[in-house]
Amino acid sequence: MQYVLKITTKDEKGLISKITAKVLEFELNILQNDEFVDKECNLFFMRSLLEGGLCEDSKNKLKESLVLILGNNACVEIIDKVKKDIVILGTKENHCLGDLLIRYDSGELNCNIKAIISNHQILETLSEKFNIPYIFISSDNISREEHELKVIESILKYPCNYIVLAKYMRVLTPNFVKRFEGKIINIHHSFLPAFVGANPYKQAYNRGVKIIGATAHFVNNELDEGPIIEQDTIKVNHTMSWQDMQRHGRDVEKVVLARALNLVLEERVFVYNNKTIVF
Amino acid sequence: MQYVLKITTKDEKGLISKITAKVLEFELNILQNDEFVDKECNLFFMRSLLEGGLCEDSKNKLKESLVLILGNNACVEIIDKVKKDIVILGTKENHCLGDLLIRYDSGELNCNIKAIISNHQILETLSEKFNIPYIFISSDNISREEHELKVIESILKYPCNYIVLAKYMRVLTPNFVKRFEGKIINIHHSFLPAFVGANPYKQAYNRGVKIIGATAHFVNNELDEGPIIEQDTIKVNHTMSWQDMQRHGRDVEKVVLARALNLVLEERVFVYNNKTIVF
Amino acid sequence: MQYVLKITTKDEKGLISKITAKVLEFELNILQNDEFVDKECNLFFMRSLLEGGLCEDSKNKLKESLVLILGNNACVEIIDKVKKDIVILGTKENHCLGDLLIRYDSGELNCNIKAIISNHQILETLSEKFNIPYIFISSDNISREEHELKVIESILKYPCNYIVLAKYMRVLTPNFVKRFEGKIINIHHSFLPAFVGANPYKQAYNRGVKIIGATAHFVNNELDEGPIIEQDTIKVNHTMSWQDMQRHGRDVEKVVLARALNLVLEERVFVYNNKTIVF
Amino acid sequence: MQYVLKITTKDEKGLISKITAKVLEFELNILQNDEFVDKECNLFFMRSLLEGGLCEDSKNKLKESLVLILGNNACVEIIDKVKKDIVILGTKENHCLGDLLIRYDSGELNCNIKAIISNHQILETLSEKFNIPYIFISSDNISREEHELKVIESILKYPCNYIVLAKYMRVLTPNFVKRFEGKIINIHHSFLPAFVGANPYKQAYNRGVKIIGATAHFVNNELDEGPIIEQDTIKVNHTMSWQDMQRHGRDVEKVVLARALNLVLEERVFVYNNKTIVF
Repeated sequence: MQYVLKITTKDEKGLISKITAKVLEFELNILQNDEFVDKECNLFFMRSLLEGGLCEDSKNKLKESLVLILGNNACVEIIDKVKKDIVILGTKENHCLGDLLIRYDSGELNCNIKAIISNHQILETLSEKFNIPYIFISSDNISREEHELKVIESILKYPCNYIVLAKYMRVLTPNFVKRFEGKIINIHHSFLPAFVGANPYKQAYNRGVKIIGATAHFVNNELDEGPIIEQDTIKVNHTMSWQDMQRHGRDVEKVVLARALNLVLEERVFVYNNKTIVF
Repeated sequence: MQYVLKITTKDEKGLISKITAKVLEFELNILQNDEFVDKECNLFFMRSLLEGGLCEDSKNKLKESLVLILGNNACVEIIDKVKKDIVILGTKENHCLGDLLIRYDSGELNCNIKAIISNHQILETLSEKFNIPYIFISSDNISREEHELKVIESILKYPCNYIVLAKYMRVLTPNFVKRFEGKIINIHHSFLPAFVGANPYKQAYNRGVKIIGATAHFVNNELDEGPIIEQDTIKVNHTMSWQDMQRHGRDVEKVVLARALNLVLEERVFVYNNKTIVF
Repeated sequence: MQYVLKITTKDEKGLISKITAKVLEFELNILQNDEFVDKECNLFFMRSLLEGGLCEDSKNKLKESLVLILGNNACVEIIDKVKKDIVILGTKENHCLGDLLIRYDSGELNCNIKAIISNHQILETLSEKFNIPYIFISSDNISREEHELKVIESILKYPCNYIVLAKYMRVLTPNFVKRFEGKIINIHHSFLPAFVGANPYKQAYNRGVKIIGATAHFVNNELDEGPIIEQDTIKVNHTMSWQDMQRHGRDVEKVVLARALNLVLEERVFVYNNKTIVF
Repeated sequence: MQYVLKITTKDEKGLISKITAKVLEFELNILQNDEFVDKECNLFFMRSLLEGGLCEDSKNKLKESLVLILGNNACVEIIDKVKKDIVILGTKENHCLGDLLIRYDSGELNCNIKAIISNHQILETLSEKFNIPYIFISSDNISREEHELKVIESILKYPCNYIVLAKYMRVLTPNFVKRFEGKIINIHHSFLPAFVGANPYKQAYNRGVKIIGATAHFVNNELDEGPIIEQDTIKVNHTMSWQDMQRHGRDVEKVVLARALNLVLEERVFVYNNKTIVF
């Protein structure tokens, strides 16, 4: 059995030594170990991939021992390395959803897709091909709040660890974000912070940039301002219309979203100060 | 109606002027025009996207007029800009096939997928989801030649413009290649000419490279030596096993194959001297 | 002798044919030809590299003939392909200036560096190594306007085609920009439009981006809003301080600036609608 | 005072704990820590950046204690973080040498350049600008062995930690390589293992690749087969002659070489199995 140990604590001398000695005491083998110290904040981050046998009881004991060593302000998590559950939200475009489904189909995506929710019907056929429950929740003739309440209701029927916005083209309210804090992953179709908001490809075309990109980030209450998990870019040129940029950009979007999701699923991402540490 | 005019001819003064004057005579509008002169070979290449109305007869007349101007050695093609037909060959991996199917499903891929042929059964379920005929031709207990004859027989039942090898893991015989000369597009999982042959990711891992890549190329009779259409690379590092490289490499493979296929379908690719010109 | 013909005009049927026929009439050979039609604006752009013998008189005649064909609103330029003159403005950092000097030293940079002007003395030793006049104009204790007038005065002593801001860390006034309109090339140390203004690396660090970049652009009166000529990006990660990002970013800055300058010197760049076409 | 602790040893449970406990005993603070386990070889690699005060005696004691813990087969190094000395070998091209000199001039390059040795005179003026001793050793009319003996003689006059081949276009003999084993860093102008040997840009042009690159590696006795430290690539296209590729490729070469050199100078590189681990 494998576990991920995640620690965030105030930096001080001897941390690694103390932590790894304790891990050893519980007869766990360290398969992988990453540490990082943010000197500006004086914070220490550590992720260890552990192997061994821990009953629920000894897991709690290890955690308690570590908190005893590190102090009450330390954040210590011991996470079973098992498949997580996700719910995907989409709108009309099929490339991010489709890419996740193909990865899911081959077993590459290390999670269970519990449901797909959309404010349009267009992705239903695709979702059905892969036997994933599809919930269509029209946003016509109802307020943003009403629509969102229905979406939340649906999500709650499919308990999940993460909500993946696979080109879900609606802005979330603070209520929604708060409800699933730190659990919502979005793909934005620009290299943020450039081109926040609507139709970034058109913005990019109008600005005449020679590079476009995509950004996967956790969602917070500032539009497109959440902690960035992963980004990538490609070159464009004057011969491309904004629709051409969009077409090429989709290839970046889907790959960046999938990479970010995998990093999150492997518990490689720490969030602090609206930034991420990715081990 | 749109047409692509493709010309390859000996370079000389005044070619563009003569050709465009003739095109104008037939009341065609030039929407896009690209030329290139290879000075080493003294060859002139031109691709024009034309708009207008040409009956079959006037198309022939335009072609004849151009050959009259350019000489008998000139290669002149006038191609209707319509959807082409393709047949896809695969083996076990689903990422390239799946990527093409998702693009196909959204209408992004400008062609008809007539059939999917494989030497394994594993991709059948995926193909059926998208209602594409799937032909399983086992290679067990028969010779390479026998197996290929069966494959050719199947292909001939689905007349097509291009054959796409979407991670088809069998080497083609000269007979097969000759039969579909210039019509077979392959994706190789390395930045050719590095790591020709089997398991390039393992080769890359063993060599300790810091970059891996993928190459889409036309197939000729030298293994992995055909004209390259498109390539891309990504960075790797020492923490990655060859399986990790493979997993990341797949994202490059599928995007490079799709880009190359689109370029070919739009008649943007010229082949000469075992190289390509891509307009 | 070689010439670059640059044309911008309203798009209509038959332009290429008419233009190339006229070029042929003057016994010029077309070595390279690029056209682009912006359909949104209905504008036609063309750059031809011509070879032949044109006296000043026949050059004027060719230009007049082309304007006669294309109409008075057409912009037609016939430029001798000779070395241009540039003046470089710098402040303290040596990487962009040093890179240009090393290229200059090997003859790779197709221009004459007439002078280097700076508001600091630190780059003087480097400039002297390469025997380029160095003009130090302190900005201490004088107004922005006074300082700039001195800079302009210096520039005018070294007549030049382009002014290259090689990490010149002062904002130019509208007066300066107007005086050298379309002639000032700047390198900005971010992938614009992200991180406009001061210390973009610190901004990037604080935002937690996973990619940084650099942008070469013509300067206009909006800060960092001029037409973009060239951009590039590199990946960064959480282990990097903003100083680390700056150190790595410099390698992008210097290469992007040199590439942009070469494109401009080869008359490959057209500007319109605050964007560039780069052939 | 800062030190780099480098350890390579057989992997086993509890290594990190034991090592860091010992480091703590010597009152050293761990500023940065990286570990990696190669599961195939069952080898453990660790690099720690330490801060504290160690006299020569206590440094030896720490080393002995660690070897006692890890066994006699362990490789343990404790390296003072001070400026290293390098000698640069070049031939005719100035871009890699020039780039190092500009970095040197600004203090960015964390080493002392003791001398520049070349088989041509062309780089002498450049080297003199930066006041670096330049030793011209003609290879005319003498055997490879004779020439190399002279080069070795010169190098020995300038004791150095690393020899940097900044586009030194001569193949080294096994004698030379053995003499400076693990100390010679070369930049090869292709993305190895593609295009080993002479004129890789011409090879790349002839093969029609869409990507070119550069590789920095330690030199061993197989031509262009040494452990790779760093690589990068850029896109090319059919309009480029091999000379164009060379011109663009130089920008990759110089940046890759400088990055690799910095990694080596910071003691971030481990070599084993003809591969590198780069922390």
